[in-house]
Amino acid sequence: MSLNLAILGGDGIGPEVVGASLDVLKAAAPGCGLEYKTTDFPFSAAHFLETGHVLDDADVETLRGYDAILLGAVGGLPNDPRLAGGVIEKGILLKLRFELDQYINLRPVQLYPGIETPLAGKTSEHIDMVVVRENTEDLYCGVGGFVRKGTAQEVSSQTMVATRFGVERCVRYAFELAKTRERKHLTLVHKTNVLTFAGDTWHRAFKEVAEEYPDVETAYHHVDACCMYLVTQPECYDTVVVPNMFGDIITDLGAAIAGGMGIASSGNLNPSGAAPGMFEPVHGSAPDIAGQNLANPIATIDSLALMLRETGRIKGSDAAIKCGEQIGAAVKKTTPKFEGKRLDRSGFGTDEVARMVIEAL
Amino acid sequence: MSLNLAILGGDGIGPEVVGASLDVLKAAAPGCGLEYKTTDFPFSAAHFLETGHVLDDADVETLRGYDAILLGAVGGLPNDPRLAGGVIEKGILLKLRFELDQYINLRPVQLYPGIETPLAGKTSEHIDMVVVRENTEDLYCGVGGFVRKGTAQEVSSQTMVATRFGVERCVRYAFELAKTRERKHLTLVHKTNVLTFAGDTWHRAFKEVAEEYPDVETAYHHVDACCMYLVTQPECYDTVVVPNMFGDIITDLGAAIAGGMGIASSGNLNPSGAAPGMFEPVHGSAPDIAGQNLANPIATIDSLALMLRETGRIKGSDAAIKCGEQIGAAVKKTTPKFEGKRLDRSGFGTDEVARMVIEAL
Ligand SMILES: CC(C)[C@H](C(=O)O)[C@@H](O)C(=O)O
Ligand SMILES: CC(C)[C@H](C(=O)O)[C@@H](O)C(=O)O
Repeated sequence: MSLNLAILGGDGIGPEVVGASLDVLKAAAPGCGLEYKTTDFPFSAAHFLETGHVLDDADVETLRGYDAILLGAVGGLPNDPRLAGGVIEKGILLKLRFELDQYINLRPVQLYPGIETPLAGKTSEHIDMVVVRENTEDLYCGVGGFVRKGTAQEVSSQTMVATRFGVERCVRYAFELAKTRERKHLTLVHKTNVLTFAGDTWHRAFKEVAEEYPDVETAYHHVDACCMYLVTQPECYDTVVVPNMFGDIITDLGAAIAGGMGIASSGNLNPSGAAPGMFEPVHGSAPDIAGQNLANPIATIDSLALMLRETGRIKGSDAAIKCGEQIGAAVKKTTPKFEGKRLDRSGFGTDEVARMVIEAL
Repeated sequence: MSLNLAILGGDGIGPEVVGASLDVLKAAAPGCGLEYKTTDFPFSAAHFLETGHVLDDADVETLRGYDAILLGAVGGLPNDPRLAGGVIEKGILLKLRFELDQYINLRPVQLYPGIETPLAGKTSEHIDMVVVRENTEDLYCGVGGFVRKGTAQEVSSQTMVATRFGVERCVRYAFELAKTRERKHLTLVHKTNVLTFAGDTWHRAFKEVAEEYPDVETAYHHVDACCMYLVTQPECYDTVVVPNMFGDIITDLGAAIAGGMGIASSGNLNPSGAAPGMFEPVHGSAPDIAGQNLANPIATIDSLALMLRETGRIKGSDAAIKCGEQIGAAVKKTTPKFEGKRLDRSGFGTDEVARMVIEAL
């Protein structure tokens, strides 16, 4: 089997960090017996500004035919009025997540060797969790509207939607994942004392699915308390399951405690295999340092490793799993070289970091 | 003028920490020429379990007649099924916030001398902000419901509501506050790239009110990025304005970086003066250490100081303002005694901490 990969380099540093990752893939694949093919796509803020074209239904159908999608970063200059209202985020990232039914947003939060956490006295031992964020419901549905917009009587609404179907498949995925981890511990994060409708749907689904997993220990934290614990006692978390909006928040915080945007990887998965997953570093397009060989590709390389492991599992390709594991291990052998440095100003060029990972393979 | 104070000790450690605060008030008031009277109210989880009575409309009307409300903590044992669904939180805290139209939740996030932050290399200089959380709208309205509850087709919804009226008065309060602070810097925190309805109402109100405050520098951060910055560069914040739900989250995180629940104070204000404010420590009722003279009352004493300052301002009582400032200063003189200790296991008794603050007066 050969993996058919769609590559969306995107904006700013996106193409560079994706390019560096593909160098690593090229070096790692043959030894694992992995064959693959890549096809580039131009979807990005720059492409939209040039052509007026974001990503239409036909584009989605084209991408659906691939085994996986690797994305660098999309997004233009922060205050560009032509990009206001989330036209790129909604038009590319959220459109793909929803249309390809990538209902799991998987975000490992792990402090790698040599990477500095902003938390005093915390080490790799204390920060090792994985967050399963529901990715197709909640406040991200786009349900809402205005009444009397632009007047003193304006009212706007934005609706969080939770379905038993959507919540249960996500919760079940999280239990399955928790079961494979050493600690076998799963925490649900919500705000059930205030969100008594959506929170109740989550609470009941969690409790009922838990009965099928007697080996997995469970806990529940309100989202506000969770944010506090993430900085005071991150060691209390192993696997975490969380709705979309709160998941967005706690995974950014998780990225921060694990060394920042520069190291955080993520995958948007459709575990059914009916559509490809999309894998992306958590960082943005950083237009200020684009094109200067300054961007650190480590988060993208790690997202590539995640892509290979997860796509390999879903498609049953041992070669892809093996290759993902080797690249992941090489990343962990490389991070000690960043000891005492900032990830975003490490002094290593983009290509140099790729070479370091390739040497560590 | 004499201040007429309603005292809701509440559950667990609530009555103790409130008692300690009132000892401080008793010691401080005469020197400032402040007269006051206190009346105790029993509203709490324990009271509800005993009597079936939470807090009804008549109780609210009674409380409306006071100048301010000091609350210890309400809440029973974490997993008590009789308290599920937020019956106490919604029935007491949220009911008072909404019925008394306490539309500002004011949360100082300041690292006091001697208090340890979990953030490496950050000091009092880096952590000194105040968060203005909107307190009467958003996901806290209770708008939502179920379709086909309990079936595989269950759908639940929970609606975030933003009104121009509610957002503008909150934003205006935040600009006024920012104007009085040294840095004169105000950051709006939202998630406008995804919440394109409610986020737009906030964005426009913020932009339009900003024009009236040319001296105040403004910034905008997405809530996910804000959580990251709170741990990596808290010094970027001075005054922050934020809707209710995101405010709940970032203020708990703020409390964590400023030393934790043990030190965080808060006020729920109705700046119009039409109804009393409610002031409470951010921590919970900690039933496990209740009644043992172990609870640290410092957050409640600081909430009392906030109560006196804010109520004094709204009611025009210089004596109350002075008394609040003196108690606040005494708290800052006391916190160095906690150096190297955990606030929640400081070894000082509840009464001992009150004495330390009184000596510092
Ligand atoms: C860009 C934005 C729409 C997106 C989100 O909110 O999901 C991002 O913050 C993320 O976490 O991937
Ligand atoms: C207890 C709960 C309803 C409350 C809230 O969510 O506002 C608390 O977390 C707070 O921040 O005061």
